[in-house]
Amino acid sequence: MSDIQDYIDQHIEAFQEQLFEFLRIPSVSTDRDKRNDVRRAALFLTEQLEEIGLDKVTLHETAGHPIVTAEKMVGEDRPTVLIYGHYDVQPPDPEELWTTPPFEPTVKEGRVYARGASDDKGQSFTHLKSVEAFLKTGSALPVNVKYLLEGEEEIGSPHLVPFIEEHKEALACDMVLISDTAMFDEDQPSITFGLRGLAYMEVHVTGPNRDLHSGVFGGAVENPVNVLAEIIGKLKGEDGVIRIDGFYEDVLPMTPEEREAVKALPFDEEEYKRDLGLTALHGEQGYSTLERASARPTLDVNG
Amino acid sequence: MSDIQDYIDQHIEAFQEQLFEFLRIPSVSTDRDKRNDVRRAALFLTEQLEEIGLDKVTLHETAGHPIVTAEKMVGEDRPTVLIYGHYDVQPPDPEELWTTPPFEPTVKEGRVYARGASDDKGQSFTHLKSVEAFLKTGSALPVNVKYLLEGEEEIGSPHLVPFIEEHKEALACDMVLISDTAMFDEDQPSITFGLRGLAYMEVHVTGPNRDLHSGVFGGAVENPVNVLAEIIGKLKGEDGVIRIDGFYEDVLPMTPEEREAVKALPFDEEEYKRDLGLTALHGEQGYSTLERASARPTLDVNG
Repeated sequence: MSDIQDYIDQHIEAFQEQLFEFLRIPSVSTDRDKRNDVRRAALFLTEQLEEIGLDKVTLHETAGHPIVTAEKMVGEDRPTVLIYGHYDVQPPDPEELWTTPPFEPTVKEGRVYARGASDDKGQSFTHLKSVEAFLKTGSALPVNVKYLLEGEEEIGSPHLVPFIEEHKEALACDMVLISDTAMFDEDQPSITFGLRGLAYMEVHVTGPNRDLHSGVFGGAVENPVNVLAEIIGKLKGEDGVIRIDGFYEDVLPMTPEEREAVKALPFDEEEYKRDLGLTALHGEQGYSTLERASARPTLDVNG
Repeated sequence: MSDIQDYIDQHIEAFQEQLFEFLRIPSVSTDRDKRNDVRRAALFLTEQLEEIGLDKVTLHETAGHPIVTAEKMVGEDRPTVLIYGHYDVQPPDPEELWTTPPFEPTVKEGRVYARGASDDKGQSFTHLKSVEAFLKTGSALPVNVKYLLEGEEEIGSPHLVPFIEEHKEALACDMVLISDTAMFDEDQPSITFGLRGLAYMEVHVTGPNRDLHSGVFGGAVENPVNVLAEIIGKLKGEDGVIRIDGFYEDVLPMTPEEREAVKALPFDEEEYKRDLGLTALHGEQGYSTLERASARPTLDVNG
């Protein structure tokens, strides 16, 4: 391993310069005017993957933004790890809240500040550079690696599933490593082995065919705002349990091992509240704050 | 009475012209740029009151828009009726929804269309012209009349109560006639003997000190939107009864006579629903739709 670590130590400044180049590309996938920038980020990745020495580096066109793949197969007897990441970023608005420009990476107290630095260019890049260190030092990669890098994560990945279905064999793997998660805290790297997923629903409440004066109609005609509030208010019980029939049907119960592992994390509930400016927390009865915030499903109104 | 009716018949066109002049004044009390127009409406009324032959016609300055008073005392043995009205109007926005200009009165199928025609210039004007018909024909007024006409009804009448307190004696009366109500329907004039009144409350729900990602904090931290919905949703029970402690404390129960009177009104619930585009009505259990819409208090979210 020391060759690999030496290589990283020797190249850390170059790596940072390359990461900054990546971060400077405003690859905002929601913004049609930034289509070419999104593409530039994809091209940047293909160049990187080629330079590192990966095989079958390919930029795949989609009806939206490109998908980039590459691989390095070192032996059929080795497990294959597919690394997923995304090179698109959230819009930087509102720009006035940035203390440094979103697309001009700035280092402050050892941290890199830029749009996409932690979502997901920084992480993706780590997973490129770690493989580079193996290949460039002639060290044997312990696993086969495949890369799947998309540019539509921030818009719901509309072309990813069809792409995966179409390239099932080429993407076949034993394990998927998602480079789009977070550390538990600064000094506590984490292995995230499951995510809660997301299901959106937009509820429309239809009321009378015109605005009504509460003095003339109030009390006799249902007020859509009151009705919507009532519906939302009934979604959870006082015990924090979601009361929609079947909501928990496909939710796996936490195993005793998982609950122990969560318990073992260095979590300070008082500090958590202080940080959020809260005096109280509330959630599903029978679960700790960390279990509520990570393993248990939730239901929130967004907007 | 025939003199009076003759006088009205002979002057009906002149009355309409005068009303139109009144309606043309854009006396929008919410709009600071319309201060002079609001004042013009007050001056128009003082001129009218003087012409009719009322006594003590006075335009009172307030910290806001003026209050106009006048009286005709015909005998200490007669009861005194105070007529209240307001000469300010709601803003005409959105102007594009008007099919004729809001401040250019237009007659269509016997109805006058203009901002303020039915709230409250039309009604106030009726109560001026009826007294004019008595005084100009030398007919004995059966009651003493006093007028109290304000220009801040549409902004919550901030200067009316202090004014009334200050002029208690001058305004003393046996009965108040509010000229700011509606007819039950086109062929059914109404005596409105009570109004529900209005109490506003703005509820703020304070949550964490910043926007939180539902994937990271959801379920562990109360979401202010969910909490607000829950609060609103709990304000009424399934039976439509408002569940705030003490809410009904000062509400007079309807008398059997009142309930009979409401029942006697020609009200077609099916037509009411059809007109509003509704398939169902809902409200406080134990009361009819008309009782719910008129006599019983309600609680609605506004916005």
